[in-house]
Amino acid sequence: MKLLSADELEARLRDIGARRYHNLHPFHRMLHGGKCSKGQVQAWALNRYYYQAMIPLKDAGLIARCEDPAVRREWRSRLVDHDGTAEGEGGIARWLKLTGGLGLDPDYVISTRGILPGTRFAVDAYVRFVRERSLLEAVASSLTELFSPAIIGERVEGMLEGYDFVTRETLAYFEKRPPQAERDSGFALAYVKANASTPDAQQAVLAALEFKCDVLWAMLDALDHAYVAPKHVPPGAFVPKE
Amino acid sequence: MKLLSADELEARLRDIGARRYHNLHPFHRMLHGGKCSKGQVQAWALNRYYYQAMIPLKDAGLIARCEDPAVRREWRSRLVDHDGTAEGEGGIARWLKLTGGLGLDPDYVISTRGILPGTRFAVDAYVRFVRERSLLEAVASSLTELFSPAIIGERVEGMLEGYDFVTRETLAYFEKRPPQAERDSGFALAYVKANASTPDAQQAVLAALEFKCDVLWAMLDALDHAYVAPKHVPPGAFVPKE
Repeated sequence: MKLLSADELEARLRDIGARRYHNLHPFHRMLHGGKCSKGQVQAWALNRYYYQAMIPLKDAGLIARCEDPAVRREWRSRLVDHDGTAEGEGGIARWLKLTGGLGLDPDYVISTRGILPGTRFAVDAYVRFVRERSLLEAVASSLTELFSPAIIGERVEGMLEGYDFVTRETLAYFEKRPPQAERDSGFALAYVKANASTPDAQQAVLAALEFKCDVLWAMLDALDHAYVAPKHVPPGAFVPKE
Repeated sequence: MKLLSADELEARLRDIGARRYHNLHPFHRMLHGGKCSKGQVQAWALNRYYYQAMIPLKDAGLIARCEDPAVRREWRSRLVDHDGTAEGEGGIARWLKLTGGLGLDPDYVISTRGILPGTRFAVDAYVRFVRERSLLEAVASSLTELFSPAIIGERVEGMLEGYDFVTRETLAYFEKRPPQAERDSGFALAYVKANASTPDAQQAVLAALEFKCDVLWAMLDALDHAYVAPKHVPPGAFVPKE
């Protein structure tokens, strides 16, 4: 392994996204292409809620072990984005508008008792990765956001066209995300380019992004397996009424 | 919630096994019924290796927070079972005989780089559950072993009949397990019956066993999704040569 230049490292990171980001997953193609049933969209939103709900814990876990006030301040904006500044604001509340618009009871969604075990295990793996690995790896694992603005654009237009039970209002979450993701991923990318200064550290950064792609991919695998024919809903998980 | 008698608690635990243990999973039925291809059996053994390899870390995590020397001594026998007393002995080494007999390179198996992310996330969730939850829940999560002797009997006979690439020697792991599982689950069952002395504690015990059933089920869901048609092998995972 040789030391990559900062630009070579960035190119390798972008190549991981081009090969392993979850926009390539068959379930996402179905979802964006208007090919999902309402029950499948409900299952996706219900499961993805757990990811949304855990993100601030993940980000606080990073701040909790970061000795640089400038990085902590920068990262704190993610808490604001997700938790808002008052009840009913922020990304998690907006996600509950989406699940509510899909006809899911908010108490049921918040309880997370209907999510797939595969979702829970994948999300928890991410939270713990950020808490336990090096700060550099924790920052690098957020870099899937480099690839999210494009997917969100596709998703909103595809879902509005494809589903009569989805409205622009219920998709409010996604309108807010692209500028936040661009700001956050810009910071994180500059951080890893500046701080991954040995071949080992660069390999750890690349592996962290692959790990995070695996988390997102495994979440869709679990959905695909449970809710796309032939369906295999595991014991105890959400069963759509259809 | 009312307080259950010890026997009622045991009946509830056995009922969870009857409904949620992974012998009910379609992939296990295929495996035992001789319906898997060699590549599918390889994928199962390769992924299950990670579970085997992490079990002693899980058990040491329990011993590491147990203040009662009698319980620690009892639990220590699990370390002996899995790690053996010398190189080449113990359950992990016997599992490598199985993967070797199936034609998998031991270095590749031990590296775990070909396993499914879903396997890794599920197994890691189990290890962390035992490390982080109460000792009572940690003990209770081992109770799937109440149900394993029956499944192992089915598995050995079914696999010997169904697959010409499997021999009794490569299945040596399973010959050792039933008496170990009976001893261990007998101890764990007596422990939870004696120590779950409030309705809350009993509910936590039941939930711990459900959690563990979810872990085993999610591992088979991941295999089923990746390796049973229509196959969806995630990026980077083992691809059988066939």
